[in-house]
Amino acid sequence: MAETEPPTTDSATMDKIVSLCRRRGFVFPSSEIYGGLGSTYDYGHYGVLLKNNIKARWLEAMTQERDDIVALDSAVILHPKVWEASGHVSGFTDPLVDCRVCKKRFRADRLEDERCERKPSLQPGQGPECDLTEARQFNLMFETTVGAVQEAGSKAYLRPETAQGIFINFKNVLQVARRKPPFGIAQVGKSFRNEITPGNFLFRVREFELMEMEFFVPPAEAEQWHRTWIDERLRWYLRYGLREGRLRVRAHTGEELSHYSSATSDIEYLYPIGWSELEGVANRGDFDLRQHTTHSTTTLEYVGSDGERYVPHVIEPAVSVERMFLAFVIDGYDEEVVGDRQRTVLRLHPQLAPVKAAILPLVAKDEGMVSRARSLYDDLRDGFMVEYDDGGAIGRRYRRQDEIGTPFAFTIDEQTLADDTITVRDRDSLAQERIGVAQAPAYLGEAVRRHWTSPKFK
Amino acid sequence: MAETEPPTTDSATMDKIVSLCRRRGFVFPSSEIYGGLGSTYDYGHYGVLLKNNIKARWLEAMTQERDDIVALDSAVILHPKVWEASGHVSGFTDPLVDCRVCKKRFRADRLEDERCERKPSLQPGQGPECDLTEARQFNLMFETTVGAVQEAGSKAYLRPETAQGIFINFKNVLQVARRKPPFGIAQVGKSFRNEITPGNFLFRVREFELMEMEFFVPPAEAEQWHRTWIDERLRWYLRYGLREGRLRVRAHTGEELSHYSSATSDIEYLYPIGWSELEGVANRGDFDLRQHTTHSTTTLEYVGSDGERYVPHVIEPAVSVERMFLAFVIDGYDEEVVGDRQRTVLRLHPQLAPVKAAILPLVAKDEGMVSRARSLYDDLRDGFMVEYDDGGAIGRRYRRQDEIGTPFAFTIDEQTLADDTITVRDRDSLAQERIGVAQAPAYLGEAVRRHWTSPKFK
Repeated sequence: MAETEPPTTDSATMDKIVSLCRRRGFVFPSSEIYGGLGSTYDYGHYGVLLKNNIKARWLEAMTQERDDIVALDSAVILHPKVWEASGHVSGFTDPLVDCRVCKKRFRADRLEDERCERKPSLQPGQGPECDLTEARQFNLMFETTVGAVQEAGSKAYLRPETAQGIFINFKNVLQVARRKPPFGIAQVGKSFRNEITPGNFLFRVREFELMEMEFFVPPAEAEQWHRTWIDERLRWYLRYGLREGRLRVRAHTGEELSHYSSATSDIEYLYPIGWSELEGVANRGDFDLRQHTTHSTTTLEYVGSDGERYVPHVIEPAVSVERMFLAFVIDGYDEEVVGDRQRTVLRLHPQLAPVKAAILPLVAKDEGMVSRARSLYDDLRDGFMVEYDDGGAIGRRYRRQDEIGTPFAFTIDEQTLADDTITVRDRDSLAQERIGVAQAPAYLGEAVRRHWTSPKFK
Repeated sequence: MAETEPPTTDSATMDKIVSLCRRRGFVFPSSEIYGGLGSTYDYGHYGVLLKNNIKARWLEAMTQERDDIVALDSAVILHPKVWEASGHVSGFTDPLVDCRVCKKRFRADRLEDERCERKPSLQPGQGPECDLTEARQFNLMFETTVGAVQEAGSKAYLRPETAQGIFINFKNVLQVARRKPPFGIAQVGKSFRNEITPGNFLFRVREFELMEMEFFVPPAEAEQWHRTWIDERLRWYLRYGLREGRLRVRAHTGEELSHYSSATSDIEYLYPIGWSELEGVANRGDFDLRQHTTHSTTTLEYVGSDGERYVPHVIEPAVSVERMFLAFVIDGYDEEVVGDRQRTVLRLHPQLAPVKAAILPLVAKDEGMVSRARSLYDDLRDGFMVEYDDGGAIGRRYRRQDEIGTPFAFTIDEQTLADDTITVRDRDSLAQERIGVAQAPAYLGEAVRRHWTSPKFK
């Protein structure tokens, strides 16, 4: 086992994270060849694989490991009345002021963070004041027009959350999936918010994928289920390797609560920008089902076979793929000195890692090693996302795999040709062991599934 | 083995497909409690699982089973100049006419399919003519406004295809993923088209998920790669069980070609509405990379280490998840008489099937059977999407699983309590065999992965 320094825990600045994501093809600024589009990102190969693993693990925890939750995928553009009923048309707004000088808009409640483009500062005493209008409410929903009908009424919205698509399907699921509370409906899907002040890399972006689960419960059980889901979601983060010391639960104060919420607790993560929301777990009460009952033609309630009848209350854990992506990359990011070299390593849980193993012939020009390596690669990729790499010195190839978080490297060397064994290098401990090449698929299958403890917990 | 009639092949009318999808919770009409929103659908539990399996198998075939394709996930709202360069702002249009009587719009090139709401018919000789305007071009891109900037220029579009997000990242991928042609970039993502005449269930909808792969090749190899990808995609459909007799390749005539295409062949499927496009495989030439080079600040070309320099040509297989979903459900749909009963069965490939196995205690009130069944269920769901069901008579439970396409049912009965064996029922052949309960996970793992031949090919 190679000698290592104890891992540092505060090396992950946001600049380093952005740089790694760009350098290794996780995340690119979007529309870059056209000068970019603020706070919009495109995901490269490893970014897609990591996001897909995050979504798969979330959906699996909700719908495969439990009996009481089913999946749903509703449309982005729903009937516009959905957003009247939900309160988003009237209430999903930020207060904005216009600057008559630079013609930009700013959030009236965050003026201290803003800069007028033509004046040195918005802050009193530090330069001439901007010429600001009174604050007005600005709706965060993107608008569009559906169809080619000439009359009014074809205005529509891009959903700012997936939850409403779940509420309007409550009755469908109740009937078809033969459910009774407590039960949940889980959805992963793109959502859009016309944020005025997006920023901090992936933390606040205008389009994002929400993972939301609405858990319908008898009213008397709502508070207990709220606590249960906060605990359940915390456990999920720990299971996939986030440091406990960088997670905390914070209950919203009355002023912070959304219009639909009777209680919300945020699971916060210690990002480089400080403690901030990772996931919200809200008790939405019966607000949404009652609103849709009032505005639609359908009564949304549970009626038991014994005649029992009530409007369920709803507990909602909601998190965006982007924030989770950011938290996992930050938490996994590590720099350490190995011998006389520094390496950067992404200590991702093997089930989240984009690539499960790299297959590396030690000498790229050795036909025997290459042919053994290609053959192992073909065996492994039948069941795993693996990579074959014969480009450059072995040390450089290891560092590349470390930076994309590949938990295992299988190296084919001289000895392989003699005795059919390969070297397995562990990303985190740097321990190396030899196994038979025929055992590799079973070894990898077992290693990816087994309980994982990262050295970052040492 | 139970006696079966040979499967019928033409039982899948569109009405029956819509009905099954609704009844079993694959697909619901969207926003139904608000009177619906034309041609928009929400996917229920099994629909989500089937869609996710389709997307995973497609992405796996592109990026895991091959070496030469990487994944990408670009934004829905790109810089608006992307769509000027691509030709979509000026050319992605349908010719429309307005009716001055009913105030509706119709596609000028499909008037024979249209009906004016106030007049009995648009067809000459069958009633008074509509009062139609001259045809005008109507752009199919949804428009929206980004940000709160007051000036003009914040107009943006929802992408009508994912391909442009790939072209504008061509240079990023070239650099970061260290690729040289021939290589491909694959993307799965939501796209939006403001279709005037959507319809035929999932066949033409306004929002859909495209699976597109842009394969960049040396210009001289374009035609050969075009043929290769048509063959490759056809083989993929056969591998996942579509009937060969319901697939055909049809080359576009010159008039049909899109503005970007130098040659396109459709892989067509025999839907209940007739032969129609399932997937398009286009030779886009160098149109897109040249357009973006002209309109942006970046030269999009390949430069080899030996100084070789060219603009690659692009071969694009493109298909929507929705059409593939529809084709797999139609192709798998079967009605057959078993003994004195008719059953409906969805013969989906086990790797596509939403649920891999049902675990059924024969007698729901027998505590021994229930506890054995729950224990097997817990073992299996560690690795597979499986369902436990103890509701109702066993025949009814089998029929429910047949209709959602579950390939295997594991039944726990009296004998299980005595000798630890269970019955495995095969969805397609209805053959039953007994295996040891401890073997069930390995049995299922093997059965799901092995080559599958559906009885529909008999």
